[in-house]
Amino acid sequence: MGALDRHDLRARVQKALDGFIASHRPHLDEMGAELTPLVDALQDFVTGGKRMRPAFCFWGHLGAGGTDRDEVIVAAASLELFQACAIIHDDVMDASDMRRGKPAVHRAFAAMHRGEGWSGDPDSFGAGAAILLGDLALAWADEMLVASGLADPRVLEVFSDMRADVMGGQYLDLLEQVRGQGTVESALRVARYKAAKYTVERPLHLGAALAGAGPDVYAAYTAYGVPLGEAFQLRDDVLGVFGDPSVTGKPAGDDLREGKRTALVAMALETATPAQTSLVRRHLGDPHLDEGGVADLRDVLRDTGAVERVEQLIATRTAQALAALDRAALPDDAAEVLRELAVAATTRAL
Amino acid sequence: MGALDRHDLRARVQKALDGFIASHRPHLDEMGAELTPLVDALQDFVTGGKRMRPAFCFWGHLGAGGTDRDEVIVAAASLELFQACAIIHDDVMDASDMRRGKPAVHRAFAAMHRGEGWSGDPDSFGAGAAILLGDLALAWADEMLVASGLADPRVLEVFSDMRADVMGGQYLDLLEQVRGQGTVESALRVARYKAAKYTVERPLHLGAALAGAGPDVYAAYTAYGVPLGEAFQLRDDVLGVFGDPSVTGKPAGDDLREGKRTALVAMALETATPAQTSLVRRHLGDPHLDEGGVADLRDVLRDTGAVERVEQLIATRTAQALAALDRAALPDDAAEVLRELAVAATTRAL
Repeated sequence: MGALDRHDLRARVQKALDGFIASHRPHLDEMGAELTPLVDALQDFVTGGKRMRPAFCFWGHLGAGGTDRDEVIVAAASLELFQACAIIHDDVMDASDMRRGKPAVHRAFAAMHRGEGWSGDPDSFGAGAAILLGDLALAWADEMLVASGLADPRVLEVFSDMRADVMGGQYLDLLEQVRGQGTVESALRVARYKAAKYTVERPLHLGAALAGAGPDVYAAYTAYGVPLGEAFQLRDDVLGVFGDPSVTGKPAGDDLREGKRTALVAMALETATPAQTSLVRRHLGDPHLDEGGVADLRDVLRDTGAVERVEQLIATRTAQALAALDRAALPDDAAEVLRELAVAATTRAL
Repeated sequence: MGALDRHDLRARVQKALDGFIASHRPHLDEMGAELTPLVDALQDFVTGGKRMRPAFCFWGHLGAGGTDRDEVIVAAASLELFQACAIIHDDVMDASDMRRGKPAVHRAFAAMHRGEGWSGDPDSFGAGAAILLGDLALAWADEMLVASGLADPRVLEVFSDMRADVMGGQYLDLLEQVRGQGTVESALRVARYKAAKYTVERPLHLGAALAGAGPDVYAAYTAYGVPLGEAFQLRDDVLGVFGDPSVTGKPAGDDLREGKRTALVAMALETATPAQTSLVRRHLGDPHLDEGGVADLRDVLRDTGAVERVEQLIATRTAQALAALDRAALPDDAAEVLRELAVAATTRAL
């Protein structure tokens, strides 16, 4: 946990989010007490967590010569509200049941609807509430960034580019699931925009922008952030299939039931025998897949050598990121934390 | 059409939107050619239209002593991108088929999915694409406002309050549909936040903020905008049931099939006989309601006197708005246009 808690970062990010949400409750309360559960759900969603993106932003800021100020924490924390939108909407689109060990937001609102005195379709209500809560989180992310008082044009540009990356990447992901080429290359492209750039490179750039950094810093952060983000996403793919539910917060094999076309799956299909290919086609994306089916798919991913290839790729990309970090002339403390974050993000000993 | 075209407003709003979207295509194109249909869909969505909200913003700006500058048009046009998000997401939540005489965005993407070479569920794909396109529109709305160069803290505050109004109001609307009290009061509260304030009062305030206006102007715009917005929404409710499809862009009686709990419906239920009440409960929200059923529901709305009461309320609120306008000391041209807009918005001779 060390790297994420230096400068008391996680506690300060939490405080910033709590303060922002508290200051925005009155407006919604005024509209009606029924809005309380909506705001509560967002507060709950942004409580706790690793704060990976704020950490990259904060250390990217210090690495670029910025100083530790509370306004920077506020700006960094706004990334958590954006992340809330991305995840809440993603879970609606993927019809995911669980998130962080709890029901996904749309499921939680559907469950609320199943109480006494409600009519209509619980799932539609849940999806609608989650769409709106994501919208609110997206609007508030931007508002919180502005509220930091540091949102100059360059800061806003980085933030806007990040939003377009994620939205475009999520659309490419949707497409990949239903008409994708299923190649390793196409899976990596989706991962690049949907997650990789947005988890590491863009938060670092936001930090650089908050420090008024020059182009060298942006280039160094790209050289470190892009391969690291890819390694991070590949680790996520492996965890989605093999991860311990108590760590991932999702049922074992959930990505397989959702039919995610990850680079891991694409690699397996590249070298699969006809029998293995047919097993993948039959089981991948079956929402009712039982434990035996999950085990069979895992076997294919291992037996084709895909898991090993992904692990090698994670190691290579992480090494590239660390080499880029060594070449960058960052202050010692920032370089040290970014090194720790790279290892933590790709081994997920977090 | 006169009031909406003064100062060539609609053509200039279109040009501002076209320019903004064109300048943002390269970033998405770089991610992949598959994103072209997504951006095309948004471009298409913001092409044409009455530009009611930009008009209130622009004339609110001139009324507050502001001058006609292209930057103001850019800021006003950003309201159309926000509106795109609100409608695209609303149509997903309501499972609406049509919008502005064309398939709703989620339906259009579902239809694209039905082409050759696609797998999976077209409706899920369509909903996912529409959620993402709405997110993109929401992000770009804010970016376009900032790009105007006029987004000082007060401008951003008005914009943020508007967003929270709409999102909170839409959630209240969802709730009203599934566990509402069904009272006139609760229906009017939903309409107030979801549509009324956001269509008239907030755009006027945005214009006032763009002109750096003092508190008197805001108060005058509230006195004019809140009743007018309510009248506008009530007109919308009537058109949703009785409107000509060639004007509304939606099938006749569509609001009845979707089961919208409007003030019009609430008023009918207040005075309905048991037989009329049971007819409403049976037919309202039946997606397969045929023309005979639509006609029966219309009869109940007329026979209970609800239509007449709503028409009276529209007339009263419009008169209140016009009286407030007379009391406000606005420049002649702005006062004249706002008077015309009030009549146009509530008679929908637009």
